[in-house]
Amino acid sequence: MERFEVNILGCGSALPTTKHFLSSQVINLRDKLYMIDCGEGTQLQFRTMKLNFQKLGHIFISHLHGDHCFGLPGLVSTLGLLGRKSDLHIYAHADAEKLYAPLFRYFCKELPYKICFHTFNPEKSELIFEDKNLRVTTIPLKHRVPTAGFLFEEKPRSPHIIREMIDFYRVPLSQIRAIKEGASFVTGEGETIPNTRFTRPAEPPRKYAYCSDTAYYEKVIPIVAGVDVLYHEATFSNADLLRAKETFHSSAAQAASIAKTANAGRLVIGHFSARYPDEQILLREASEIFPHTQLAYEKMILKV
Amino acid sequence: MERFEVNILGCGSALPTTKHFLSSQVINLRDKLYMIDCGEGTQLQFRTMKLNFQKLGHIFISHLHGDHCFGLPGLVSTLGLLGRKSDLHIYAHADAEKLYAPLFRYFCKELPYKICFHTFNPEKSELIFEDKNLRVTTIPLKHRVPTAGFLFEEKPRSPHIIREMIDFYRVPLSQIRAIKEGASFVTGEGETIPNTRFTRPAEPPRKYAYCSDTAYYEKVIPIVAGVDVLYHEATFSNADLLRAKETFHSSAAQAASIAKTANAGRLVIGHFSARYPDEQILLREASEIFPHTQLAYEKMILKV
Repeated sequence: MERFEVNILGCGSALPTTKHFLSSQVINLRDKLYMIDCGEGTQLQFRTMKLNFQKLGHIFISHLHGDHCFGLPGLVSTLGLLGRKSDLHIYAHADAEKLYAPLFRYFCKELPYKICFHTFNPEKSELIFEDKNLRVTTIPLKHRVPTAGFLFEEKPRSPHIIREMIDFYRVPLSQIRAIKEGASFVTGEGETIPNTRFTRPAEPPRKYAYCSDTAYYEKVIPIVAGVDVLYHEATFSNADLLRAKETFHSSAAQAASIAKTANAGRLVIGHFSARYPDEQILLREASEIFPHTQLAYEKMILKV
Repeated sequence: MERFEVNILGCGSALPTTKHFLSSQVINLRDKLYMIDCGEGTQLQFRTMKLNFQKLGHIFISHLHGDHCFGLPGLVSTLGLLGRKSDLHIYAHADAEKLYAPLFRYFCKELPYKICFHTFNPEKSELIFEDKNLRVTTIPLKHRVPTAGFLFEEKPRSPHIIREMIDFYRVPLSQIRAIKEGASFVTGEGETIPNTRFTRPAEPPRKYAYCSDTAYYEKVIPIVAGVDVLYHEATFSNADLLRAKETFHSSAAQAASIAKTANAGRLVIGHFSARYPDEQILLREASEIFPHTQLAYEKMILKV
């Protein structure tokens, strides 16, 4: 099956620790890379994980808190030093351009490529990106500043060709593409063979959702319903529920409750507060509600 | 002897690698911390090296290239989250405030402490900081943008008290401080005992110089003459001398030649280009000219 992986570069919260880097993930879909968030140190982790800078084209920033975007200037500058030519697209709240464009102009004067800022309104769910493989939709979240998560949906894939039937009917190579796209086939004898004889349906398109940072927010559920993998922040444990409420973050149990109601395939929790030396407590609290839960960790590669 | 150490947080050049972090050092003089440069990831290394955020009061930025200052917003934000109350002083080119103040205002709205920017003119050597232990003077360097290195000079220390003589003359404890400051002592019998009988001179004040980034620049020599330790950039090897010239950087041999002429005690080279998988070549080239040379490395603690 074609590659659809999530690389966890950092899954700590605002205060970095010796264990966790700041928020950043890189989606690898069919060998193109898409970044979500870019905390300080992201370019270092990108390199450590041996990801290819040339394959990164799009960066999605969930919100303008430093632990989700302070890595941008360093990454932008490094891409320039590596001789990048193609445009780099940054999707973020409108303030991002106001804040970062002056910095890029000052520090990255001779940038050999163009940076294109795209703004979105984090208050409604909208399609903000589309290419031939992928659709990215925002997920409005509830945090101290305007924040959106992101739903990454693979586009429907071509059906599988049944090789034996192609051979049996001696279909010329030139017609395979049409058959993949649904055409039937007419034999030399004029007989029409229906497309279904040559193909098996493709696997259903895979979906990944990223929800960080957010308080417990049920409006997320219909948007992430049925995703294969849900990444949801779980900054706090049940014992610190009050603190979660004050800071507009979620507990592990709340993340699990979203995953359960949304009927997610799996839940990965992250954005851990530095106060928990042992995150097993978060895993236990979530797993009681939604058993298919994993803790995120740096350099984790999640297959969707 | 009182502590005077240099902690190397990062000694790579513009492109971070899996081996090197970006430029930053922390001087520990008598348990107060002073930072030089603050590349991306500095706060992570600061924590990894178990340095104490509360003891950091002053940050000196050599020049406004990203690999020397992109770590500032993250560090400033973390100090706020840790509840810092006392002022933080940043010494840098005047543009630093213009570039960073808007970012601090936006991202660190509820900062519980004050940031004081101090500007200096990198074109002349001047005293930019002084406290009871330390004097920091700029070292004009020759780079693509206005750049200064820093000379850290310990202030003369109090002489050592000779315990046996204090006991012999039964000097009361209340007078020890005056004797440390040079007073003589009058005995009960009215005899004046000269100060020199009670004290041995302190060790001469120690000096550390930081020179990065810079082309080979002889005007540095009189300013760093006789330092105990000279940190000098050595971005390139002899084979890449042309590249060094173009980019206003130094070769290892040029760094060594400065150390030799300035009669430095030791030379530590750093700011290595990512092109050398084995930096021994840089060490060899420098050591041929100035044998007391070491390679900098991350987490190195240099005793001055």
